[in-house]
Amino acid sequence: MSEYTLVHDAANVVVGPDDGTGVETLGDASVVTVDGRVAEVGPTEELLREYPVENAETAVDASGRLVTPGFVDPHTHALFAGDRTDEFEAKLRGTSYEEILAEGGGILRTVRAVREASVEELAANLRAHLDVMAEHGTTTVEVKSGYGLDTETELRMLAAIERAHESHAVDVVATFMGAHAVPEDSDAEAYTEHVIDEQIPAVAEQGVAEFCDVFCERDVFTADQTRRILRAGLEHGLKPKVHADEFARIGATDAAADVGAVSADHLLQTDDAGREALVDAGVVPVLLPGTAFALGEEYADAGAFLDGETSVALATDFNPNCYSRSMGFAVTLGCVGMRMTPGQSLRGATHAAARALDRDDLGTLREGAPADLLVHAVSSPVEVPYTLDVNTVETVLKSGVVVRE
Amino acid sequence: MSEYTLVHDAANVVVGPDDGTGVETLGDASVVTVDGRVAEVGPTEELLREYPVENAETAVDASGRLVTPGFVDPHTHALFAGDRTDEFEAKLRGTSYEEILAEGGGILRTVRAVREASVEELAANLRAHLDVMAEHGTTTVEVKSGYGLDTETELRMLAAIERAHESHAVDVVATFMGAHAVPEDSDAEAYTEHVIDEQIPAVAEQGVAEFCDVFCERDVFTADQTRRILRAGLEHGLKPKVHADEFARIGATDAAADVGAVSADHLLQTDDAGREALVDAGVVPVLLPGTAFALGEEYADAGAFLDGETSVALATDFNPNCYSRSMGFAVTLGCVGMRMTPGQSLRGATHAAARALDRDDLGTLREGAPADLLVHAVSSPVEVPYTLDVNTVETVLKSGVVVRE
Repeated sequence: MSEYTLVHDAANVVVGPDDGTGVETLGDASVVTVDGRVAEVGPTEELLREYPVENAETAVDASGRLVTPGFVDPHTHALFAGDRTDEFEAKLRGTSYEEILAEGGGILRTVRAVREASVEELAANLRAHLDVMAEHGTTTVEVKSGYGLDTETELRMLAAIERAHESHAVDVVATFMGAHAVPEDSDAEAYTEHVIDEQIPAVAEQGVAEFCDVFCERDVFTADQTRRILRAGLEHGLKPKVHADEFARIGATDAAADVGAVSADHLLQTDDAGREALVDAGVVPVLLPGTAFALGEEYADAGAFLDGETSVALATDFNPNCYSRSMGFAVTLGCVGMRMTPGQSLRGATHAAARALDRDDLGTLREGAPADLLVHAVSSPVEVPYTLDVNTVETVLKSGVVVRE
Repeated sequence: MSEYTLVHDAANVVVGPDDGTGVETLGDASVVTVDGRVAEVGPTEELLREYPVENAETAVDASGRLVTPGFVDPHTHALFAGDRTDEFEAKLRGTSYEEILAEGGGILRTVRAVREASVEELAANLRAHLDVMAEHGTTTVEVKSGYGLDTETELRMLAAIERAHESHAVDVVATFMGAHAVPEDSDAEAYTEHVIDEQIPAVAEQGVAEFCDVFCERDVFTADQTRRILRAGLEHGLKPKVHADEFARIGATDAAADVGAVSADHLLQTDDAGREALVDAGVVPVLLPGTAFALGEEYADAGAFLDGETSVALATDFNPNCYSRSMGFAVTLGCVGMRMTPGQSLRGATHAAARALDRDDLGTLREGAPADLLVHAVSSPVEVPYTLDVNTVETVLKSGVVVRE
């Protein structure tokens, strides 16, 4: 028999999505992994007869513990430089995000800092954040470019993402987001042409991104510009994603549906027609409750999707404006902020999140899935959101190897 | 020269309250402690001439880091037994706290579990929570009884609190709260008499509590019953505290003012007259934003106190209904939930919280203060609330001794 890793005697194992919008959980279960994949998951008594603890290459005692798939964080801007903590204080005094933008703060301030940073500095910044994310159970994370806004810096960001990915246990999925903001010396239409004519071909040529994302928003990129950029990306092999309906409803959900986006993210202002367009087109809704929490705003309407039997993905949206790196906290916010059930929220942080990255095999512990899994310092799924402000993750396995304990 | 501990080269040290409602911070500073107390705090260059690193008994390198006083958590129900995670799920489906109470859940369910637990079990439960609190920077915590509701169990809870206090680095301040709920076999008036005639004298005789607290609330204890219990406590040397205005405004703030309570806690429904009564009587307002967060309710009006130059204390309210143990998260909620400034929120978690426990010498790092201090993995005060969901605390010193690193 080949060498195996055993995570044994768990009180509960979240094995994957159920038939509805939640998760399926097995009590008194164990997980066997071989060659980085789940070989078997099932009742401990049966499993240990076939795979004895003493013969395991690595045995993780999960007695009384909850085991879940590794968290997948499908929307972050985790690669940046500079300091914007003063804006956090300004916002507490009532300054709006749009006022901060108008004063040269916000995204454009980070752009200035990133343009001055080397690829080594950028990769080091990202690796430090990946360490924190791994401690909190994230095993796969999407990271966007978009603080360069010129071809050279966008490529440098994507190179830094690749470098961090290659040197870290956490898998990093790269998204090109040249269309994150309009640079100070340009206008939206001219910059759209620049993204299409120069940035996308350059990114595609280097093969350094899997997705292409656009901030479709009032005073940023129109729905028409969004469509054109995402279609150009598609022609170059970049799968589309959209920042949709964060502050205003300007047709982003229709654009996402039209181009067959893998996900549409934020959705704070989305109405019934927008939700229907996304669901009909098979676009995964990604909700970012940390952003609403950080800004003291209303949460997205998760229930409107869930009531229609569409599961929603959760993400941290980690960025200088939302300093959130814990998917466990996103699960808590899914429940206390958006009234999702613990099962719906855990699915949002695992399998639904994996679907938002076009990786349907992740976020489950069913046979054949990559053996990315977590042992939590609690015993049942509900305790992940119930534990409001303390990291529940104790041990992290990536591809069957213990990377945190 | 006597032996000294040195926490040196901090980027910033929060030394204590400022003249307003915030904190005073020194840049490029170090702290010297001798015999468990702060001997000196000041500019690193000056301090290290007098107290060289190489001569220190213990030297903690805080280069580039933020140093703050240890967190004081002035309101918890951290001693309990049993499991109420199912109620968390029920609440997400819309069941109200009062419905859960009516079905035998809530406080009375915990009471049943605590009555069946031994003092050893209770102390072990509490110690496990104190470990988590210490990791998150709490160096002094108040813990209430009140899940016994009979003399024997209340005394057993207080004995468990004392046992945990004696065997843990975190200082535990004991509050007797026999009047936390009305037991199933009694009514409020008869039970009030029982608390006054039996419980308070028994608690006082054993000398196991410093404070006496009452849940003054619609359908629990009236303002008149609250006054009588707290006055009986005072006669037996127990300092008064009040759970005031959580769900309904029934005169709790007047009762707190009348008896000269050290603190009034919750204050979700408090109006201008109530705030004025508290401020005039010198009662410290304690706000519990975690409770509002957990229940998805409105936050207390911190600004109404702060605008009047009264600083407010923050606490976790840790209990089975609000599973919050991190004062750093309370600081975050003070800012993003209640729009306090980072300085006001940090003061709320340190010196204002200490005042709510009648320990004005705690929660500062001024000369002579107990050397309870934290080194954070960030450099400035604003980063404590800005770091939304990750523990910033790296190293914890209690009475000048490193207890976590």
